[in-house]
Amino acid sequence: MKGIYDKVVDLATRRGFFWPSSRDIYAGAPAGFYVYGPLGLRMKEKIVSLWRRKIIIPEGVHEIETPNVLPLKVFEASGHLEHFFDKLVECRRCHSRFRVDKLIEEELGITENLEGLSDDSLLKLIYDNEIKCPKCGALNWTDIKKFNLMFTISVGAETDEPNAALRPETTQGSVVEFRKSFMVMRGKLPFALAQIGRVFRNEISPRRALIRMREFQQLEVHIFFDPEDPDEVYEDRLEPLLDYKLRFLRREDRETGKIVEMTAREGLETGYTINKLITYWLVIYQKFFNEALGFPLERLRYRELIEGEKAHYALAHWDLEIYTDDLGWVELVNNAYRTDYDLSGHMKVSGNDLSVQSNDGTRKVLPHLYEPSIGLDRVIFHELMVAYREDGERTWLQLPRYLAPVEVGVFPLLRRDGLPERAREIYNELIEKGFIAFYDESGSIGRRYRRMDEIGTPVCVTVDHQTLEDNTVTMRDRDTMKQIRVPITRLPEKISRFLNSNVPIEELID
Amino acid sequence: MKGIYDKVVDLATRRGFFWPSSRDIYAGAPAGFYVYGPLGLRMKEKIVSLWRRKIIIPEGVHEIETPNVLPLKVFEASGHLEHFFDKLVECRRCHSRFRVDKLIEEELGITENLEGLSDDSLLKLIYDNEIKCPKCGALNWTDIKKFNLMFTISVGAETDEPNAALRPETTQGSVVEFRKSFMVMRGKLPFALAQIGRVFRNEISPRRALIRMREFQQLEVHIFFDPEDPDEVYEDRLEPLLDYKLRFLRREDRETGKIVEMTAREGLETGYTINKLITYWLVIYQKFFNEALGFPLERLRYRELIEGEKAHYALAHWDLEIYTDDLGWVELVNNAYRTDYDLSGHMKVSGNDLSVQSNDGTRKVLPHLYEPSIGLDRVIFHELMVAYREDGERTWLQLPRYLAPVEVGVFPLLRRDGLPERAREIYNELIEKGFIAFYDESGSIGRRYRRMDEIGTPVCVTVDHQTLEDNTVTMRDRDTMKQIRVPITRLPEKISRFLNSNVPIEELID
Repeated sequence: MKGIYDKVVDLATRRGFFWPSSRDIYAGAPAGFYVYGPLGLRMKEKIVSLWRRKIIIPEGVHEIETPNVLPLKVFEASGHLEHFFDKLVECRRCHSRFRVDKLIEEELGITENLEGLSDDSLLKLIYDNEIKCPKCGALNWTDIKKFNLMFTISVGAETDEPNAALRPETTQGSVVEFRKSFMVMRGKLPFALAQIGRVFRNEISPRRALIRMREFQQLEVHIFFDPEDPDEVYEDRLEPLLDYKLRFLRREDRETGKIVEMTAREGLETGYTINKLITYWLVIYQKFFNEALGFPLERLRYRELIEGEKAHYALAHWDLEIYTDDLGWVELVNNAYRTDYDLSGHMKVSGNDLSVQSNDGTRKVLPHLYEPSIGLDRVIFHELMVAYREDGERTWLQLPRYLAPVEVGVFPLLRRDGLPERAREIYNELIEKGFIAFYDESGSIGRRYRRMDEIGTPVCVTVDHQTLEDNTVTMRDRDTMKQIRVPITRLPEKISRFLNSNVPIEELID
Repeated sequence: MKGIYDKVVDLATRRGFFWPSSRDIYAGAPAGFYVYGPLGLRMKEKIVSLWRRKIIIPEGVHEIETPNVLPLKVFEASGHLEHFFDKLVECRRCHSRFRVDKLIEEELGITENLEGLSDDSLLKLIYDNEIKCPKCGALNWTDIKKFNLMFTISVGAETDEPNAALRPETTQGSVVEFRKSFMVMRGKLPFALAQIGRVFRNEISPRRALIRMREFQQLEVHIFFDPEDPDEVYEDRLEPLLDYKLRFLRREDRETGKIVEMTAREGLETGYTINKLITYWLVIYQKFFNEALGFPLERLRYRELIEGEKAHYALAHWDLEIYTDDLGWVELVNNAYRTDYDLSGHMKVSGNDLSVQSNDGTRKVLPHLYEPSIGLDRVIFHELMVAYREDGERTWLQLPRYLAPVEVGVFPLLRRDGLPERAREIYNELIEKGFIAFYDESGSIGRRYRRMDEIGTPVCVTVDHQTLEDNTVTMRDRDTMKQIRVPITRLPEKISRFLNSNVPIEELID
């Protein structure tokens, strides 16, 4: 039996949420690149707009956009040239190359803690277990090599040597432009920038559809703060949230997998969540994923990373993860306390002073950086995974209603008696009012409902013979399939209320 | 005296519309890459959203998103590997490299028709005019070489050879995914896809701020149609627009520069605009740039390209250009009739059949492609150029009101007597209602108005002592500086009316 993962990939490809780039035509095209079709793109737009509305605007974050291509110097300063690599072995016989951790994982089923092992230990593990080349069967490996995950390019006609790279994170753009942005915006600390953008990583083994891609999209916030005064503005903001329960997998519970619920207050008092600023952002991101994106709390946890797993820049690091039966726990947000690692690096390499004045004007400050970084594609994929339902009769996506790519389907019951004309009028009115509507008159009414269910359309409006008599239509609930009758004049208001609530459709009768 | 170009670049950098990437810190960073600050980014979002609202949604275009990185095979099929290059000469003495057309242009002031000359003629022009190396002064050039403008990369661990490239246009993504999208969306011809995305070109001489960049953004529509039946659906759509006057610089008027006004009907009847589909799209793009983006008609023209200037894929090709005193005529939209050039190329290289069924199911069709492609960054730059005003007293941007990055400024007249508190309340209400508002209480009221004028904020609301008595505030018009008093309760409605109209503020009194 197919798992939900396969069913979601199949549905997504068939209905145009997303599919692998170029592969229908060029079978040998590199993996890890995806196309978003109209439905997936609209979900993406909706998630981005929700994030702006719920996080970026209320938190006073300044959104900027830096290029995908940055000078190589930037990544020398950030440590990516030195530290951002995967480990690789090559078969001496057939010259095939493999990612060491994947090779071991697939042969031995070990998935944890490999990141902490030395090259010698890894090679020993390979030879001790006689892991042979999956291509040619030889047991004759080279030493372990570092394979940098950045794509480098050479810009300009003067040189053929690489002098720039595609960014592997949006962060460095914000760090390099921090001081300029701070000046231009007449900033005070804490000062937060946001970026929505593509990033590129030369993954050796891209896999699992949108989970591990070579080109993907991040939603990042970069909060620069005075390390001597991280809490000032967050005192008031955190106050009403002190009893909110964060869900952690702490390092000491790694073995048992036990998730600890810890209030924001406890996190602060025990020092576990470091300061009010970080605590606050941990809270609002968990809330955002639960309340706005609709993921159940029991599927979410912050996994504390340990030495060897943490990024090279991070002092503290939690992954906000989501659980599904098919994929287990998967990281959706990388939450890293990067200290002044990045700004210091750029000061050193560039020789420029990147510090700013403290708010009271008495000190020079090199700000610290805290960064929650959302992997947008993974979020979309998990929205589909969590929403997927089937009951033998039909398949439907129980998406949060306001995230559905089509908001309302409009059908004439039959293709005659003036019903299509009336339905088209209603459709045009709804489009006019800004709803994302879809008109369909082909096939039986049952099939049309099924097609809308399958892409998660929360409500369908049907025009029937009674419509011609009393100007009412039916509204049908995706999840319960229940229907109510409403006057056409009140349709926009009813649809809008339905999309922005969780109530069953019967409650819209009044 | 500084021209408007320099003033706009200065204003944009100072106030955070855009500025060169990384260069504040890394002086040697490659040119042609720009950062959008919060103001520029918001203008960009507004233009994109206008384009979606005015073109994409009403025309039933399906928006998709393909990756920035595509397999090299794709660009072999599209002809970019062979045809997408600039011509380069190298100084034999100092090995500096120069773009041939730029070298000649800068020395001789010739700007037209160079694209049509052969390599021999170009080299002869250089030697006949004794054009020396601008770096070292030698007159000893290599032969002319082709310099491909695509950035290539190698994807995966298996190879170090380039096997992919950063796309130089979004088109190829749509062409490669055309058939898949057509199937998934149960399409009929004509079938239109749209893409908003970054493209990358290794320009030898990036210049003029956002005009010639190495990484920039396109808004493209790709209309695939049946060449035997291009007009069916466009018959009705074009009908009400037949008397609309298109503005052309035809090839035969190139010498005189005379712009011919030609109605859509005349374009069709004379065959100049080929068919109804192409005529229709020429009309709605000129209308969009004039009516929605606010560029005066007398600054716009379609320039017909001639052999040697046209892209390698185009049968017919017009650039929609805009005129400013500082920059002359600059291309904003590339409008190309690409025939089946792209789809045929991919069929040949991939060996796959990319044709679809004709609408009546009787024929196999390899669709033709017409493509209007907007250079988004150039549009933003020209919005600023055209909006720039100064009168000795003040500088302001007379932007179309709905494109302004900040919609309303909110000020207390003084920093005491409870005025700031009242002003903050109003500010919060406006934010709540979805306006992009900016609160400012620092400096004199005159300076605060100036700061808003300079970034084009259409209206400022000021809270004064009378506000505390009768709950009214002043609204000030950016362009005329006239003020009216309105009750706070009616403020959102008044601001909204003002932003969506061109009327002077006095007309809002009722």
